[in-house]
Amino acid sequence: MFRKNSNHTYQAASPKMQLYEITFQPDGVKVKAAGQTTIWEAGQRAGIILNSVCGGAGTCGKCLVYLDGQETPVRACQYRVDRDLVVTIPESSRFFEQKILQEGISSQASIEPLVCKHYLQLAGPTLEDLRSDSQRLIAAVDETAGGAVHTCRDHAGTVSGRTRIANSLLRQLPALFREHNYAVTAVCHSGRIFAMEPGDTTGTMFGLAVDIGTTTVVASLLNLVNGKTVGIAAQSNPQIPFGDDVVSRIEYSRANPDGLRQLQHRMVDCLNQLIADLCKKTLVQPWQIYELTAAGNATMQHLFLGVPVEQIAQAPYVAAFSEAVNAPARELGINIHPQGNVYVMPSVAAHIGGDTVAVGLSTAMKFSEEINLAIDIGTNGEIILGNRDWLVTCSTAAGPAFEGARISHGMRGAAGAIERLYINQDVECGVIGEVPPTGICGSGLIDSIAELLNIGLLDPSGRLCSRDEIPAAVPPKIRTRLIETDNGPAFTLAYADQTKHGKPILLTQRDIRETQLGKAAIAAGVATLMHHRQIQPQQIGHLYLAGAFGNYIRPESARRIGLLPDLPLEKILFIGNAASTGAREVLLSRQTRYRAEQLAREMEYVELAGQADFQNLFADCMFFPEK
Amino acid sequence: MFRKNSNHTYQAASPKMQLYEITFQPDGVKVKAAGQTTIWEAGQRAGIILNSVCGGAGTCGKCLVYLDGQETPVRACQYRVDRDLVVTIPESSRFFEQKILQEGISSQASIEPLVCKHYLQLAGPTLEDLRSDSQRLIAAVDETAGGAVHTCRDHAGTVSGRTRIANSLLRQLPALFREHNYAVTAVCHSGRIFAMEPGDTTGTMFGLAVDIGTTTVVASLLNLVNGKTVGIAAQSNPQIPFGDDVVSRIEYSRANPDGLRQLQHRMVDCLNQLIADLCKKTLVQPWQIYELTAAGNATMQHLFLGVPVEQIAQAPYVAAFSEAVNAPARELGINIHPQGNVYVMPSVAAHIGGDTVAVGLSTAMKFSEEINLAIDIGTNGEIILGNRDWLVTCSTAAGPAFEGARISHGMRGAAGAIERLYINQDVECGVIGEVPPTGICGSGLIDSIAELLNIGLLDPSGRLCSRDEIPAAVPPKIRTRLIETDNGPAFTLAYADQTKHGKPILLTQRDIRETQLGKAAIAAGVATLMHHRQIQPQQIGHLYLAGAFGNYIRPESARRIGLLPDLPLEKILFIGNAASTGAREVLLSRQTRYRAEQLAREMEYVELAGQADFQNLFADCMFFPEK
Repeated sequence: MFRKNSNHTYQAASPKMQLYEITFQPDGVKVKAAGQTTIWEAGQRAGIILNSVCGGAGTCGKCLVYLDGQETPVRACQYRVDRDLVVTIPESSRFFEQKILQEGISSQASIEPLVCKHYLQLAGPTLEDLRSDSQRLIAAVDETAGGAVHTCRDHAGTVSGRTRIANSLLRQLPALFREHNYAVTAVCHSGRIFAMEPGDTTGTMFGLAVDIGTTTVVASLLNLVNGKTVGIAAQSNPQIPFGDDVVSRIEYSRANPDGLRQLQHRMVDCLNQLIADLCKKTLVQPWQIYELTAAGNATMQHLFLGVPVEQIAQAPYVAAFSEAVNAPARELGINIHPQGNVYVMPSVAAHIGGDTVAVGLSTAMKFSEEINLAIDIGTNGEIILGNRDWLVTCSTAAGPAFEGARISHGMRGAAGAIERLYINQDVECGVIGEVPPTGICGSGLIDSIAELLNIGLLDPSGRLCSRDEIPAAVPPKIRTRLIETDNGPAFTLAYADQTKHGKPILLTQRDIRETQLGKAAIAAGVATLMHHRQIQPQQIGHLYLAGAFGNYIRPESARRIGLLPDLPLEKILFIGNAASTGAREVLLSRQTRYRAEQLAREMEYVELAGQADFQNLFADCMFFPEK
Repeated sequence: MFRKNSNHTYQAASPKMQLYEITFQPDGVKVKAAGQTTIWEAGQRAGIILNSVCGGAGTCGKCLVYLDGQETPVRACQYRVDRDLVVTIPESSRFFEQKILQEGISSQASIEPLVCKHYLQLAGPTLEDLRSDSQRLIAAVDETAGGAVHTCRDHAGTVSGRTRIANSLLRQLPALFREHNYAVTAVCHSGRIFAMEPGDTTGTMFGLAVDIGTTTVVASLLNLVNGKTVGIAAQSNPQIPFGDDVVSRIEYSRANPDGLRQLQHRMVDCLNQLIADLCKKTLVQPWQIYELTAAGNATMQHLFLGVPVEQIAQAPYVAAFSEAVNAPARELGINIHPQGNVYVMPSVAAHIGGDTVAVGLSTAMKFSEEINLAIDIGTNGEIILGNRDWLVTCSTAAGPAFEGARISHGMRGAAGAIERLYINQDVECGVIGEVPPTGICGSGLIDSIAELLNIGLLDPSGRLCSRDEIPAAVPPKIRTRLIETDNGPAFTLAYADQTKHGKPILLTQRDIRETQLGKAAIAAGVATLMHHRQIQPQQIGHLYLAGAFGNYIRPESARRIGLLPDLPLEKILFIGNAASTGAREVLLSRQTRYRAEQLAREMEYVELAGQADFQNLFADCMFFPEK
């Protein structure tokens, strides 16, 4: 299909193929794309990455774009180019390149991956120069890199002695040198030459950054020469059949003798599938991927490496390991370069994994004088509080309400989910994918409750009023939405004739109680950390929201229901998918990798179960704030 | 059979077994040995290692000992104990613990192997201490070792960052900790924890030092706690069927697609057999051997690691690698601890391997102010000249004469070989094993030629005189030994009725010419290095002789024929089997390992083919010195 030429632009391989010119706006970037290429793929080749939660399946509606100035958007992942097109990308459809990162400390790090290549034109041996092949190679690499001290400096700045050669490479050296007239490229990682290629291949160097989410696995293929993302692929986590959440997968591994191995193999297979997909799309060869970095919660990181997880789910809940792990790809069965490195992010505790370290990394809290707060909201809420002098972190069990579980009409944030809700004269809904709704997701749930609190249909204790208690000011169309069911009062979010399935979408009293439990857990976690360090809300400079869910809530609603502390809205910032960003940052920059490890060591873990005041704070936080 | 008890003495496992008390003299060491144990094995258990070239096959006659003061010696490897015995060991039957090493710089290094063990009694996790298993482990090891800086210092003194854990170990940690109540022993190597054992196993730690000779492979099992050798086993090099010498094995690997792999597998199988033998004899478990160090010539080291060797035999003759190599045992298929380290000695050039570096190490030339010379005589002669400021080295093709090949009645130095020869009124021979002779080995050859020169039957050009040229002073019994054959004159070393095979053993004119070629190659190599550095013989402090052959020659004879330079005899010292000693020293001492690598880098290789004066010097050296 497409072939990379030496100038790093893309051209059609065959002159017969029909090519169209696609212009992306407001970037003004043009790219030639063959017919049948999706707009999403064309953008990817132009270095423009569009949003996607469903991985191109066409279900999430996150990649809407406008064609030739038309008013109705199309899904970039579904639309195949059929003519020259001008594609306008709304900010909301761009892949999370969150503002904070672009301004923050991380983006200041130059593109300096741990993998590096050196093209060497060696003089062959003569009677006057009888050095061994390996000596010749090492001397040339050291010279090109500016001395062994430079070659061997790892991301922590430690010089690990002399430049080394992978043993497997010794077996290839003599033939490689002599068959290619001593013109070769050496591929290095932390002072170790682990691969050799004939000729000059310094222009081609890829890495893979993986976010191992409990629900979704996202792999980004990066060009390590210029730092650009050349492709993104995603799949549902293949461990889901063994358990929707972390705890049930741990239980599966405990109860089944072969469970741990199965869970690991599923993940390795999934990554290999993503690699195959990305390589097929981009024409990158798997062996041109020299490093893979992975970030996930601690359980996902354990399972990926095949490390037992039982102790994560048993009191007092500890991880088997928390340091960053480096392993040869071959050892794990990952189909990148067999001698390539697999790097797993450092973590802090059993419930503070590499994904949370990535949150700390993204927010650059470690470099800030003012005190900041970061919250990653999911089934568990991970919270970080602190500044350059100290950082405390905790994890709190929010339960699955924000991910749509245990809510009458709850669903994940996919097409058909009510994700926004406003109450004026009537209810106004925003639905993902702009289709008739089928349910409500976490952000819609929070909006709904906030709005019901605002108009007085819900009191601070969390009780929905009965029909005869409705305040006089409530508009008639809202009033009629409050109904009585067999299980108590409920509020009609969408009527049967408005929904896809023809049944009404209700918010029940029980849904509200579930949400209260979840938000109380998060709020009590925040309160405990603040109390632990004697911090008042007004001392907090910024509140960063992370995670797939955190990025879709309306801060004013979350603040209204007391999920977030009472801070001015301008202090609340979204940092997108920190795990994905973190994996990419540590792939591209040795400095950031060092910072991640330093950060993980410095974050002080606070176990809420060990905090005397947590239960009291939790009870307090069950209430909704007064207006 | 025998079981080690906690005090490191040996006792019978079963009370029914008949035990004898064996007293070794002049050491005065007593040991209990079961019937059928050989004296060699009993000595080994008492820490007394007897000489062996044949590896206990009973053919070399190097382990002769005297029982109960009797005058006729027995072979320790063949004699099985049948009563209480007093065994007197002549100095000549002791395993080469050469004087130079015991006095030299190497022995000053303390027993400080790179492998070390730490017994840890950890406190398990509590709500107040939720560190991960790996954090807990690393902190405890660092504390026991006196800080990470200490744990992570490798033999070069480089601190390789933080203490690390082998990935395979992460998978075992959770169960190991919890099943053994957090009382465990960590096994480390250069800052990396690579094995964990339940309870306190710090008293048990073994290593294997291997001399990979072209002809014989010798493995020494060492107790890394006290530095003692607990067992030695030897086998013929299993690659011999593919070629007697290095060049023919290289040719085999070139000509056969699978040749390299075959040669490597043979060596790995051989080492595994030696390990099995040693473990059986000593009741050490293979997984209790945590490191293997290997020294051999460059070709043997290449073949052991499966690295191509063709370029060693093709001009301009270079090695694929010359640095020391570290590889996990598992990767090479060596049956010690799978995560144990295999260390291959550094080398200098295609013909200056780890065995020659071991010679440099043994002689401590690098630390001497005076200029020393070391020669390892074999099919190739390796020569080192220099002092603490500079070291030059070369290799010269001596041919197989000194190993008995291409000599009419030549043989290796095994039972039946004439190894000493004196001419007084008649010829007096020393025969290995004190049996009727079957041939002559290298040292006997040199003695014979030296004695013939001394009495004038041989002139400085190397011509045996004819019967009518015999000088008048030659005694009658010698005179009659000079005979004429179809191929010219010859000297009768042993008459038909004195030999085992009933045929006379002759030294022919052609044998003398072969020997001249061999000795000229060595002498010209020495002369070239001395000329290269403008060194006169009188500047040389010591001449060290190494190698299986070098240790058996009579220095005065070797000097007489011009094989060795004209130095006072007291300056000539034997250093035994340097490869074996070197492998043991680098196993026991990180300091020595560092020195070996430093030495290999500092030795300047001189290619004789590139030296203008080598051919002239070679021609000069063909002559025997005048009396």
